[in-house]
Amino acid sequence: MIFDLEQAISVLARTPASLRALLDGLDTPWIRGTEGPETFSPFDNIGHLIDGEETDWMPRARIILAQGPNRRFEPYDRFRHKSRNVSRALDSLLDEFAKLRRQNLRTLESWNLTEAQLGLVGEHPSLGPVTLRQLLAAWVVHDLGHIAQVARVMAKQYRADVGPWVPYLPVLTDHEVPRS
Amino acid sequence: MIFDLEQAISVLARTPASLRALLDGLDTPWIRGTEGPETFSPFDNIGHLIDGEETDWMPRARIILAQGPNRRFEPYDRFRHKSRNVSRALDSLLDEFAKLRRQNLRTLESWNLTEAQLGLVGEHPSLGPVTLRQLLAAWVVHDLGHIAQVARVMAKQYRADVGPWVPYLPVLTDHEVPRS
Repeated sequence: MIFDLEQAISVLARTPASLRALLDGLDTPWIRGTEGPETFSPFDNIGHLIDGEETDWMPRARIILAQGPNRRFEPYDRFRHKSRNVSRALDSLLDEFAKLRRQNLRTLESWNLTEAQLGLVGEHPSLGPVTLRQLLAAWVVHDLGHIAQVARVMAKQYRADVGPWVPYLPVLTDHEVPRS
Repeated sequence: MIFDLEQAISVLARTPASLRALLDGLDTPWIRGTEGPETFSPFDNIGHLIDGEETDWMPRARIILAQGPNRRFEPYDRFRHKSRNVSRALDSLLDEFAKLRRQNLRTLESWNLTEAQLGLVGEHPSLGPVTLRQLLAAWVVHDLGHIAQVARVMAKQYRADVGPWVPYLPVLTDHEVPRS
């Protein structure tokens, strides 16, 4: 599948509603469960996605588009949300994520990016040169990875409850050791 | 987390809406893409979940509850949907899944299952003795596993497009070899 801006936006636009459908109104054990120490609960996933809206994808897109003398991205803090959202409720985080995403996509669409602009290059602090097209594709994949993570972490709350079914339910044994 | 029927139903009830939010209205490449030969596209996942509503979870729950002389479940056909849904469109499958799930949960709730009933045992054709509680927990986990699978398969359509980002997006390298 070749990256297409409109198709990418059609996925990015639906992530807040997908996560709301999956999580809103569930009891605390589903929302706050994790898959082990130092791993993200569904609640943490929403916080992490909010951090992405505020500090990662669009700020990096702006650095690339500006083509200034310093095109190096700020490193991304994967744990900013932990202290930021201590006293927050899930539904308020879901609302905030939806609002930030809507604003960011409105801005992204207003840029009317050309193929030439999508090919412009910035510098990732550890991965090196990356294009705007790669950044936007990574944004889509990052969303989908976190939807998959939320579903997986929820599934694992019932690992003991399924008894002998574990080998037929591979989601229960995915990421037994946390990855990245 | 200890299995609780009401909490289980609260997850089962939202799966159709979660999948609709994730998929409805997307272009064909997102819906029909797979992660390799003999693997399920998002479209196939919905078909497989419909098969589960019609032939797996509730029929097996009935066998357990009946406690008849033969408590062995019929083996489950993981590929029934392939021929069944050849000429179907995704939105019609999403509607059908939502309807079947609603009916099944209405029936499940009408049983007002007791703790004693949740402990009744049936025989899985390959896993051996399983309780009704384990069956219902497996149903929840199965749903969540397929939501995770849909998101993962979608993410993989952009594997080439993210360029050097692959190692930071573990969803792209999950299940490189299909698992069960």
